[in-house]
Amino acid sequence: MDNLYDPRFGDADVAACLSEEVRLQSMLDVEAALAESQAALDLIPATAAAVIRACAQEILYAPEEIARDAIRDGNLAIPLVRQLTREVAARDGDAARYVHWGATSQDIIDTGLVLQLDAAVPLIVDRLGLAAAAAADLARRHIDVVMSGRTWLQQATPITFGLKAAGWLEALARARHRLASAWSDARVVQFGGATGTLATMAPHGEAVADALAARLGLRRPGMPWHTHRDRLVHVAATLGIAAGSCGKIARDVALLAQTEIAEAHEAPAGSRPSPEPQSAGRGGGSSTMPHKRNPVSASVAIAASVRAPSLVATMLQAMPQEHERGLGTWQAEWQTLPDLVMCCAGGVRATAEMLRDLEIDPARMRANVDATGGLVMAEAVSMALAHRIGKPAAHDLIESACRRAATEQRTLQDVLLADAHVTAQLTPDEIARALTPEHYLGSARTIVQRVLDRYDQRLLERYSPRA
Amino acid sequence: MDNLYDPRFGDADVAACLSEEVRLQSMLDVEAALAESQAALDLIPATAAAVIRACAQEILYAPEEIARDAIRDGNLAIPLVRQLTREVAARDGDAARYVHWGATSQDIIDTGLVLQLDAAVPLIVDRLGLAAAAAADLARRHIDVVMSGRTWLQQATPITFGLKAAGWLEALARARHRLASAWSDARVVQFGGATGTLATMAPHGEAVADALAARLGLRRPGMPWHTHRDRLVHVAATLGIAAGSCGKIARDVALLAQTEIAEAHEAPAGSRPSPEPQSAGRGGGSSTMPHKRNPVSASVAIAASVRAPSLVATMLQAMPQEHERGLGTWQAEWQTLPDLVMCCAGGVRATAEMLRDLEIDPARMRANVDATGGLVMAEAVSMALAHRIGKPAAHDLIESACRRAATEQRTLQDVLLADAHVTAQLTPDEIARALTPEHYLGSARTIVQRVLDRYDQRLLERYSPRA
Amino acid sequence: MDNLYDPRFGDADVAACLSEEVRLQSMLDVEAALAESQAALDLIPATAAAVIRACAQEILYAPEEIARDAIRDGNLAIPLVRQLTREVAARDGDAARYVHWGATSQDIIDTGLVLQLDAAVPLIVDRLGLAAAAAADLARRHIDVVMSGRTWLQQATPITFGLKAAGWLEALARARHRLASAWSDARVVQFGGATGTLATMAPHGEAVADALAARLGLRRPGMPWHTHRDRLVHVAATLGIAAGSCGKIARDVALLAQTEIAEAHEAPAGSRPSPEPQSAGRGGGSSTMPHKRNPVSASVAIAASVRAPSLVATMLQAMPQEHERGLGTWQAEWQTLPDLVMCCAGGVRATAEMLRDLEIDPARMRANVDATGGLVMAEAVSMALAHRIGKPAAHDLIESACRRAATEQRTLQDVLLADAHVTAQLTPDEIARALTPEHYLGSARTIVQRVLDRYDQRLLERYSPRA
Amino acid sequence: MDNLYDPRFGDADVAACLSEEVRLQSMLDVEAALAESQAALDLIPATAAAVIRACAQEILYAPEEIARDAIRDGNLAIPLVRQLTREVAARDGDAARYVHWGATSQDIIDTGLVLQLDAAVPLIVDRLGLAAAAAADLARRHIDVVMSGRTWLQQATPITFGLKAAGWLEALARARHRLASAWSDARVVQFGGATGTLATMAPHGEAVADALAARLGLRRPGMPWHTHRDRLVHVAATLGIAAGSCGKIARDVALLAQTEIAEAHEAPAGSRPSPEPQSAGRGGGSSTMPHKRNPVSASVAIAASVRAPSLVATMLQAMPQEHERGLGTWQAEWQTLPDLVMCCAGGVRATAEMLRDLEIDPARMRANVDATGGLVMAEAVSMALAHRIGKPAAHDLIESACRRAATEQRTLQDVLLADAHVTAQLTPDEIARALTPEHYLGSARTIVQRVLDRYDQRLLERYSPRA
Repeated sequence: MDNLYDPRFGDADVAACLSEEVRLQSMLDVEAALAESQAALDLIPATAAAVIRACAQEILYAPEEIARDAIRDGNLAIPLVRQLTREVAARDGDAARYVHWGATSQDIIDTGLVLQLDAAVPLIVDRLGLAAAAAADLARRHIDVVMSGRTWLQQATPITFGLKAAGWLEALARARHRLASAWSDARVVQFGGATGTLATMAPHGEAVADALAARLGLRRPGMPWHTHRDRLVHVAATLGIAAGSCGKIARDVALLAQTEIAEAHEAPAGSRPSPEPQSAGRGGGSSTMPHKRNPVSASVAIAASVRAPSLVATMLQAMPQEHERGLGTWQAEWQTLPDLVMCCAGGVRATAEMLRDLEIDPARMRANVDATGGLVMAEAVSMALAHRIGKPAAHDLIESACRRAATEQRTLQDVLLADAHVTAQLTPDEIARALTPEHYLGSARTIVQRVLDRYDQRLLERYSPRA
Repeated sequence: MDNLYDPRFGDADVAACLSEEVRLQSMLDVEAALAESQAALDLIPATAAAVIRACAQEILYAPEEIARDAIRDGNLAIPLVRQLTREVAARDGDAARYVHWGATSQDIIDTGLVLQLDAAVPLIVDRLGLAAAAAADLARRHIDVVMSGRTWLQQATPITFGLKAAGWLEALARARHRLASAWSDARVVQFGGATGTLATMAPHGEAVADALAARLGLRRPGMPWHTHRDRLVHVAATLGIAAGSCGKIARDVALLAQTEIAEAHEAPAGSRPSPEPQSAGRGGGSSTMPHKRNPVSASVAIAASVRAPSLVATMLQAMPQEHERGLGTWQAEWQTLPDLVMCCAGGVRATAEMLRDLEIDPARMRANVDATGGLVMAEAVSMALAHRIGKPAAHDLIESACRRAATEQRTLQDVLLADAHVTAQLTPDEIARALTPEHYLGSARTIVQRVLDRYDQRLLERYSPRA
Repeated sequence: MDNLYDPRFGDADVAACLSEEVRLQSMLDVEAALAESQAALDLIPATAAAVIRACAQEILYAPEEIARDAIRDGNLAIPLVRQLTREVAARDGDAARYVHWGATSQDIIDTGLVLQLDAAVPLIVDRLGLAAAAAADLARRHIDVVMSGRTWLQQATPITFGLKAAGWLEALARARHRLASAWSDARVVQFGGATGTLATMAPHGEAVADALAARLGLRRPGMPWHTHRDRLVHVAATLGIAAGSCGKIARDVALLAQTEIAEAHEAPAGSRPSPEPQSAGRGGGSSTMPHKRNPVSASVAIAASVRAPSLVATMLQAMPQEHERGLGTWQAEWQTLPDLVMCCAGGVRATAEMLRDLEIDPARMRANVDATGGLVMAEAVSMALAHRIGKPAAHDLIESACRRAATEQRTLQDVLLADAHVTAQLTPDEIARALTPEHYLGSARTIVQRVLDRYDQRLLERYSPRA
Repeated sequence: MDNLYDPRFGDADVAACLSEEVRLQSMLDVEAALAESQAALDLIPATAAAVIRACAQEILYAPEEIARDAIRDGNLAIPLVRQLTREVAARDGDAARYVHWGATSQDIIDTGLVLQLDAAVPLIVDRLGLAAAAAADLARRHIDVVMSGRTWLQQATPITFGLKAAGWLEALARARHRLASAWSDARVVQFGGATGTLATMAPHGEAVADALAARLGLRRPGMPWHTHRDRLVHVAATLGIAAGSCGKIARDVALLAQTEIAEAHEAPAGSRPSPEPQSAGRGGGSSTMPHKRNPVSASVAIAASVRAPSLVATMLQAMPQEHERGLGTWQAEWQTLPDLVMCCAGGVRATAEMLRDLEIDPARMRANVDATGGLVMAEAVSMALAHRIGKPAAHDLIESACRRAATEQRTLQDVLLADAHVTAQLTPDEIARALTPEHYLGSARTIVQRVLDRYDQRLLERYSPRA
């Protein structure tokens, strides 16, 4: 039975690229392309290449046998090549000579992995684009919605929800660009033979390597990279960073969705018609508590941000691989990198859906700003006073006014109007104006507009969330 | 298709405890035991409990539906309970009222996990016992085999292979004890209802909790632990430490198995009759290099030691779980803990097999000691001299003699016999004696014997590797 | 200049145990105790031991020279022993022969570290005791204070603050016990000479090792553990688990302290007379926002819980140490373990202070329970109904009532009283009773009392927070 | 006393950029530049800016007071600004009004950090250049030196040392490019005020931000990034990847330096005249074993590669920062990022020195190839045979020949010449040729030359290691 958690915490499309079936098939695709490349260079008979290709595509392999033999052989390629050779031999004894010619197991395993990732990573890049477009949409629609900025989980000074969403947008757009760029560097063929010299095909090794890369649509690197894993690790790191930014956004949403704050909510499950179950909203119910509306998508994104750092660390930790083939270090990558890709894909997808379906409550946002009786405007009044009496004196004056307001359960305005030190500097109108959140938003609108201008159009063209 | 890597890097028996089928069944077992506990206390009809038990054992559930709904619901328990309730209702409409009575999803998921681990962890404890017994066997058989001790990967002073194996034995025995002890603390039922008050069953909550724990053979904790995960994390940490000790042993073996050192080898695949494929030796061949005998078991144990630290870190990282139920933090455990158990189980099993089948070459060990022309005995001569002229002077004298021996490609003995400063203090016989590794083993035998006396008998009784 | 962050994020007393000065002095203490042990066994002259002891205690060493030479030598012990030998030689040329006799650098470095930890770890054990006692005090004082239990950061069902604090207490008490137990296993002397055979002192190596352990007040292990680091790693893991539990508690407090929730607060700085600055409360102000009261202690504990997992992972990752001395792996521990101890000490201390000074607002807790218009009591009514019509039907009925209450901004009581399906089953009084949080606390009081009975008295005797 | 380990494991120049003194001064530089920017825009008096600048540069601050107050205040900026304001007020009471105008603590702390890194990171980029140039030099000088390629730590097929060094070169050059590129993205000013709106300076906030960035020589980002840390985390990740590649190279060197392999050695300490202690070679001696030449630089690089992954993980883990200011998450970065920079700087520097001074023993490399009696050439013969009888049959034939050679202690040539199946296909000359390592190097020379052509000239111009 497949892992039941994958669908929920992952992304079904990405999972499909990373399945065991596709893993084996990708390795077979490499073997077939290798034979074809060699045939095109007249190194092996064209008929042999044709039989190898046919067997690589048509034969049902025995995964149990491969798994069992891999225990002894130490990797999947050895038993897989053994089965392929057996099949080829059954059709054309001569062709069997040319299976896996010049390659080492790691060439097949690594290049197969690159093929799998070349399907999976662009999907995640696109999901990041969708998430960014959804954030852009939120920023545009709510550009002037006033809410509390919060530091240390305390109300601080007012911001707009547009500003918060613009921050999400920028982080997602950077994550998208960074992942795409790292993957572009990493989609290189692995082909070097046992120790990277391509000796078995001399003097044609270089030509075969070029042809193989071209046939698979991959780039050819400067040299084989069996024990230099930095390109893959960089991809892993950019995935981890994407998961981290999604975790930040999801944590914001989860905090806004708290019962007592209630400024944003995930759309409840089923609130949106969708052909896919994963797209139908995940605001989940409880098995026992009928009133709950749980931030399920946020939990998926946060879980990914908790898991990804360690999976990235394993990839980094496995880098010091011995000589021309790692001993236990390469092997440590085998489960880790697919797990990381799945985990980050799940976090990114959940974030994209969460943002697409996010319900904002501007009235509640405004009410929460008011709930402290003006305390959240303390800095604004302090700054207004500071223009007259300097920052330190203003800070002290307002700090004590805030304390009085809190202790005596009065609004800050009441306290200030009753304070001769304050009224000596500010008129009641000035005080009222200083206490109005809408007047204390600084550059928020300018910033949001600039960010939208930078990203919005390009993203919306490709990833319109409201099509 | 199941993950092809599991069988190789894991342990089939442990994997069987951690499968998705068993995960669902364990949760159903908890639901059935809960109903029976409530029936035994006359809180629900005995007939209802019987129907729930029957459905929990006989029904084929639809895992695809569970997986799909779990996306929306946020965990596996909600759709599973929904299916169970539907089945129970189909047989006995009244009984359906009592399904999942008083429990929250996390009660079922956590207690189900504890049941799974209660099958899996003792297997790993036993594997650690087997590995320790194999190390004890090696230490006993090779107690007096002289080899180079190595520091900084340089030959240092002579030791015995018995001493090295005794170090492995002690570490494995400690790992076994530590894991068993941590698990004994952690095998506690989770049962608290939505927020840990057992309110839905008041005033019978405590009695139900006691009965449920007794029925499942688990301990009852002081209170529910929905967001206090330290017991599980401690188990995770002791698993990680076991993997680390296995990684140390495997690294030693891999270094000894290097072509140029060749003091130890994994038994080649198939060298040992075994009913199980995993027990048939894994010294693997190469897909292209016919002369290779790869340390495959060592690579599995090293890979586990590279992966485990990060998985432990995720468990630690997920500890700050919010209020009465974690948001993304608990969820981060779901794949991590089973992965960690599998990963460590694989490393431990590979170590046990590696040690059981390890081939030692005492002649090569002795030859390698001699290969430096006596340089490895430098400390011994230095110490013999130090008794006469003090440690600093002796160290300087011998350091320069070593440099000469290395530069001029002479044996240390030649150089020393030609050095008047040395011969003024030591006779040729004294020099020869000081240069004999067998005379410079200090307490090695005493130490090994003490360690064997402490562990050997108990371990051998339970885990005899040579039965 | 010392690291400015240490005092804030650490614990000054623990920092004092881990300073560079103490590190060097601890290593010198080991050298002195070694010479005295050898003198007591008549292996070296008593006068030599006396001079070595005197120099080890009286001489001002040149740390810059040690640091500079350590670059070349690869560890601190080599240049330190060189300086010690020089000093001893200046007083007594013969005594210089006996400095560092029979030891290897790692014996001195590791045993010195164990001495440092033997001062530091018990302080952390005590801080955990203080924190647990403070939690016990909170649990006792607020045993019946009703508040919202929260799952997914949503109000769920009512609990008591006593129950929450009892959970904190149990976790802290377990952390304390676990750390004390792991340290008890790990406080063993390291003494084996170059490769663990004690060869230079044969046949007296064992006797010297016993005497050295006794003199330092440490236990003697079964054998040297130069490359078997599991005991130290277990200590590291239990520190990490303690930091994780503190992080959980601090996150709870930070969430309760949010402006909109306001159920608990850290005491403001200076609110409590204290001879130590660290004990004066840390509820910090803002540089620009006069009304803020930041949860500073919580931030320290959370930061520790974010940092500790990775530092534990490094310790695990460094376990596979090569042969008889690690190459880069042992060295990776050198900064990591002290950092981890400091980091966890800081988190534990901040937690102890935070709990000791925590201000609880029971009225606000009760008001927040009411703020949802009864929604938080949904499960209670659902359960009351379930006794009549079964859980599934009750759940559906109440779920739709909740939705109506939320949409129409009515209280749940209003909606229920207007719902014929409900009033057919429950009288208005029964509905009112079901909606009263105080009637839906289940076993909360029993559980808290049991936990207090188990831990309170022992803890309070030693760690009374209200003395 | 400063941390004694820093100089050894770090890099003195980088450490100087990251000291506590520089940390405080960088924050003061930001305050001064802020005041000057505001004065240039006529927002504050030019005289006030001048006094602030003067105090920021001339005053000796009291670090103990700052450290003590930071405990209560929660960060370093609050007490530092307090001291600065006090100093400014003492000189010009009016100017004190304008200290820290419009900034929040995090603006000062983050921008100060960016200034520190802007000094430190380019040094590491340069060290990577030096290391790459040293690898290029090795590759060029030893382009045709034959040695064993090794997989699974077993001799596999021959390579050249040039090929190995070219792999190191490419990895180092990629690490250099990646770090430089990530840093170029991350060197952005942080300036947003309390919650990122720049409200206190409205409508001039944007202009001040532009001016501040220009004055500090930093880029201005799209918006404040208080809780979006991805740029810094990307720098951390590229540092970690650099450390990983250095760890791979150092592990190769340490394995080659093993007593039994002895193909490469670190230059012994003092073997090279150098004005700096760190540049004098670190091949260290032992405190007790006079013959040892320890790979000290390799140990530093390996230790960095063991520590860095976890420090990167902490940075990733700290990414989900709450709302407009992190609570414990931002704080977790404070020690981690400088530690990571130091750790990686040390690993990179040690690698650069190790490569610059590496001593290669081509004769020993060739002898080790021969030591297996031709077994390392097994693939070559197998391939020669495969051209005649197909790969599977050839593999089997040679595998059994290898087994015979190993068992009977004969050379592979002897066994092959005596095997009729082989001699039926290959003449003695063909066998001899197939067994000659120099004839089985494939594309090694072509690859090395291509890599050198790509990197060598540019690197050598800037970083010539042999000037």
